[in-house]
Amino acid sequence: MKVAVIMGSSSDLETMKPAIETLESFGVEVISKIVSAHRTPDFMYEFAKGALNNGIEVIIAGAGGAAHLPGMVASMTTLPVIGVPVPSRHLNGLDSLLSIVQMPSGVPVATVAIGNAKNAALLALRILSIKYDKIRSYLEKYNNDERNRVLGEKI
Amino acid sequence: MKVAVIMGSSSDLETMKPAIETLESFGVEVISKIVSAHRTPDFMYEFAKGALNNGIEVIIAGAGGAAHLPGMVASMTTLPVIGVPVPSRHLNGLDSLLSIVQMPSGVPVATVAIGNAKNAALLALRILSIKYDKIRSYLEKYNNDERNRVLGEKI
Amino acid sequence: MKVAVIMGSSSDLETMKPAIETLESFGVEVISKIVSAHRTPDFMYEFAKGALNNGIEVIIAGAGGAAHLPGMVASMTTLPVIGVPVPSRHLNGLDSLLSIVQMPSGVPVATVAIGNAKNAALLALRILSIKYDKIRSYLEKYNNDERNRVLGEKI
Amino acid sequence: MKVAVIMGSSSDLETMKPAIETLESFGVEVISKIVSAHRTPDFMYEFAKGALNNGIEVIIAGAGGAAHLPGMVASMTTLPVIGVPVPSRHLNGLDSLLSIVQMPSGVPVATVAIGNAKNAALLALRILSIKYDKIRSYLEKYNNDERNRVLGEKI
Amino acid sequence: MKVAVIMGSSSDLETMKPAIETLESFGVEVISKIVSAHRTPDFMYEFAKGALNNGIEVIIAGAGGAAHLPGMVASMTTLPVIGVPVPSRHLNGLDSLLSIVQMPSGVPVATVAIGNAKNAALLALRILSIKYDKIRSYLEKYNNDERNRVLGEKI
Amino acid sequence: MKVAVIMGSSSDLETMKPAIETLESFGVEVISKIVSAHRTPDFMYEFAKGALNNGIEVIIAGAGGAAHLPGMVASMTTLPVIGVPVPSRHLNGLDSLLSIVQMPSGVPVATVAIGNAKNAALLALRILSIKYDKIRSYLEKYNNDERNRVLGEKI
Amino acid sequence: MKVAVIMGSSSDLETMKPAIETLESFGVEVISKIVSAHRTPDFMYEFAKGALNNGIEVIIAGAGGAAHLPGMVASMTTLPVIGVPVPSRHLNGLDSLLSIVQMPSGVPVATVAIGNAKNAALLALRILSIKYDKIRSYLEKYNNDERNRVLGEKI
Amino acid sequence: MKVAVIMGSSSDLETMKPAIETLESFGVEVISKIVSAHRTPDFMYEFAKGALNNGIEVIIAGAGGAAHLPGMVASMTTLPVIGVPVPSRHLNGLDSLLSIVQMPSGVPVATVAIGNAKNAALLALRILSIKYDKIRSYLEKYNNDERNRVLGEKI
Repeated sequence: MKVAVIMGSSSDLETMKPAIETLESFGVEVISKIVSAHRTPDFMYEFAKGALNNGIEVIIAGAGGAAHLPGMVASMTTLPVIGVPVPSRHLNGLDSLLSIVQMPSGVPVATVAIGNAKNAALLALRILSIKYDKIRSYLEKYNNDERNRVLGEKI
Repeated sequence: MKVAVIMGSSSDLETMKPAIETLESFGVEVISKIVSAHRTPDFMYEFAKGALNNGIEVIIAGAGGAAHLPGMVASMTTLPVIGVPVPSRHLNGLDSLLSIVQMPSGVPVATVAIGNAKNAALLALRILSIKYDKIRSYLEKYNNDERNRVLGEKI
Repeated sequence: MKVAVIMGSSSDLETMKPAIETLESFGVEVISKIVSAHRTPDFMYEFAKGALNNGIEVIIAGAGGAAHLPGMVASMTTLPVIGVPVPSRHLNGLDSLLSIVQMPSGVPVATVAIGNAKNAALLALRILSIKYDKIRSYLEKYNNDERNRVLGEKI
Repeated sequence: MKVAVIMGSSSDLETMKPAIETLESFGVEVISKIVSAHRTPDFMYEFAKGALNNGIEVIIAGAGGAAHLPGMVASMTTLPVIGVPVPSRHLNGLDSLLSIVQMPSGVPVATVAIGNAKNAALLALRILSIKYDKIRSYLEKYNNDERNRVLGEKI
Repeated sequence: MKVAVIMGSSSDLETMKPAIETLESFGVEVISKIVSAHRTPDFMYEFAKGALNNGIEVIIAGAGGAAHLPGMVASMTTLPVIGVPVPSRHLNGLDSLLSIVQMPSGVPVATVAIGNAKNAALLALRILSIKYDKIRSYLEKYNNDERNRVLGEKI
Repeated sequence: MKVAVIMGSSSDLETMKPAIETLESFGVEVISKIVSAHRTPDFMYEFAKGALNNGIEVIIAGAGGAAHLPGMVASMTTLPVIGVPVPSRHLNGLDSLLSIVQMPSGVPVATVAIGNAKNAALLALRILSIKYDKIRSYLEKYNNDERNRVLGEKI
Repeated sequence: MKVAVIMGSSSDLETMKPAIETLESFGVEVISKIVSAHRTPDFMYEFAKGALNNGIEVIIAGAGGAAHLPGMVASMTTLPVIGVPVPSRHLNGLDSLLSIVQMPSGVPVATVAIGNAKNAALLALRILSIKYDKIRSYLEKYNNDERNRVLGEKI
Repeated sequence: MKVAVIMGSSSDLETMKPAIETLESFGVEVISKIVSAHRTPDFMYEFAKGALNNGIEVIIAGAGGAAHLPGMVASMTTLPVIGVPVPSRHLNGLDSLLSIVQMPSGVPVATVAIGNAKNAALLALRILSIKYDKIRSYLEKYNNDERNRVLGEKI
């Protein structure tokens, strides 16, 4: 099981770290890289086209502003691509969200909430769980733990 | 291979039909149902909790306005849930989009563009493709066909 | 007289506290609980379905982001449900507001201003006042006091 | 049982009619009037201040644009006031929604979805139901009927 | 020459002070008061209806959120009313702006930029200048000074 | 009494006509012209700088999109300038509204609702009424007529 | 003088045609092509990388929704790239605008108004005019003609 | 090679500095000035009309709120004008963006991202590069350096 976590700039790492940590806590191998749609288009091309052959099963891509990375990667692979809208400085990530989610027919990006890289990881795990029973068991346990944690909270 | 396509109301069918048609054109079995989060909450619980055991591998849920169906279903299954924001009468689906995509940590919904049920189907197919090689081949062919169709367009 | 004040997470308590305090200052019994639509759907189901029999007359529900709690509770009770859009981190509660107020025909949520739990309590009191004369007297006194406080302000 | 349904202009009647019809179908007496905050402020004062003594138990007020009617009426009564944001010509009712829902602390308006006067009526009925058992029974029947109607829909 | 500067709450004073200071620096008499549309509707009524007879020639009204003060005052006087959208906590004054500017036909409010009470004063002065030549001279001097100040700025 | 009604393009005439008609029905002389900030900047300079000497007392300027006409005219006169945001094709006049109302300190534009040229005329009349008693009488009659018209409406 | 006008889909042609027509009316050679960022990424790479050597001096790219074409082309050439946000079905081009204009530091796209392909052509001509005096003369004539046309309009 | 960098107020300098620095680092002569559309309209007029004869080849204009500077300058020159939306205090620059980008047909402004003056400089350089080979070489080197910098980043 291998998931790639890519992002457009090292400044996105703070937002994207929870994706890496969550995946690793479930025992998934994580490939993490800076891949900039605009500054390293050739590398993006190469990465996206090679992802499947490199054993990657799901790609998580975070980007902010005119966020083109998730959609462009999705256009060059058949793997499921999850987009994380990174909060932007002036528009709080609304631009990132629309740039990622409003993809034209033919090339979907599975978009999660602004800044919510942890949910991107959990979505990747749900996707893996249709193939790997172990991941499903882990997710069931995770959801149970979350439920019990919330039920235990006092006001 | 079985995918569920559910929606909150029969008036959403016009938006959601391309999801059903696209999946069926790829040879995927489709279970389609009206499941209203607000008018049939018990049936929604039953559906969501039983989906895995009924052999469903991916759930596509369309809803508009205060669109709670995709997120609520996601909270009661470990299957990947894809949300389609159905265009709303007054706010053009911006309310549907935010109600679906802005899920809290713990329960992700894979959100696609407003009204783009076809992309929800293609995303479901990408998810299935990590398990079923045949689907991957079909997707590669689909993308090739799309590319050739566009390259053949004249201005 | 019994009002429930529920919220999706303990992090919402800071926003919701004024609802509890205002209700208690009017002598209303308050049941306050963490009820997460997404992490404890079964408990939400049980809570909503039992509210009437537990003597609750009005339910105040606060939630943020894709805020499904008020609408889902409203779908499983006939009691009046008041929704408080909790300010969200990136979109300042605009997502919370739309997710709560834009309910489909059949299941209304009485929505108040973003982050304004105090007004949720005052709305609950107005609702109770149609049944309990004492509450109406208290509200009249409250409004008088507010008026006099404002009239006494100097620039 | 008496509910007032007021609106700022006769052009709002098309939007507000479902509130009147729904209330009457539940056997509630409806007082309906044109009350313009901006063109008939004196009449609005008189109406709001006299509502309680006239036996009105809930007020539904519809208005569009800079929609001041629900909030102003709420400031002059202790009755619960439900606001219906009437769709506006250029901003689709987003201005109406914000003008109604974003009330300051002290004076709440129970806001429903843009243009959803039917839900305003159902909310008024939920409020009445805490006092009148008959209304609760009717609401339970209404919700059952809605559920059965949806369950009977075929795709 | 007398201008009233009113605001809904003492917390608006920080925003509104520049209006008072600018008017006074032009030698205009300023009447400043807290007048809350929602907490002191009777006092607002009395203030608005008496303004003309009290020698007031222009009214500046600042309010935030569901900002009803400028529009309601305008509905009860024929004097020109200038509205200042006070920045709100969660929506940055966008709600205040729409609640003030989107007035229905019949009752206009002269709206200035969010939080720009100084411009409200300058607008009041422009209005007075059509009657009082002295104010026009002062405004010409003010604009000249502003021009010279900007021309003197160095980068 | 002379009011100028200017607009950026002949396509704005449909929106602006009610301003001309309302002013004329009050007996005010109207100067109406096409003045484009972007296509006739020289003429705009000439018009704005000469307005006062040409006996104009209030300027109403309508413009859409990046609507610069009202603000630019205001920068070259001390007369009160009223801006009418003309509805734009794609953003419904939200761009027009923000381009007109959000003026920097020093140069105010009295902004009215999107597309509401009639209110611009009524605002101009309120401004004139501080100098001309006759206009005030007319406005009082107008408001009375409006009130009576609304009070006479039946549901 | 050669300008490329590219667009993501043949459905964008209606929006983009005025760019082609305007450029041709100025005697500029136009290369127009369908180039889809998402459906023909390889062709987009090839086009963008070869543009300079093919004698193209300015690129105009129109795209809608998650509009990645202008930004991606800009990332693979040093030529000036002008982006035209094509109006989208549900969000009226606001998504297209933000996806095009909010580019990260390093790779600019010269963005024009939503749906305004004619202005994209005029911007390309202004760019060419710094090199080709003839284009500057033509633009001066064009602006004169526009001015005279507007000055000749009657109300 | 000469580029003008102008801005409406000295408070915009912090935002606009990167434009000046980037241009100078490429060896371009920079003319920087405070030019306020609203406070110094005559100077703006003079500047815009004289720019071409003063040897300026591209104009970069930054402005915030009702940002009229870029559009007005563009209306009085045939030079390419680049607009930088300066972040505004209450609306984060969304008003600045719409006021700059939504220009009517006939007068284009090349708009870059909110607050992104560096990209304005890079766009000016791309424009110059169609005339000056040296700038093209520099841009190619700049892009290579950026690519290598990103490729060298580690997670």
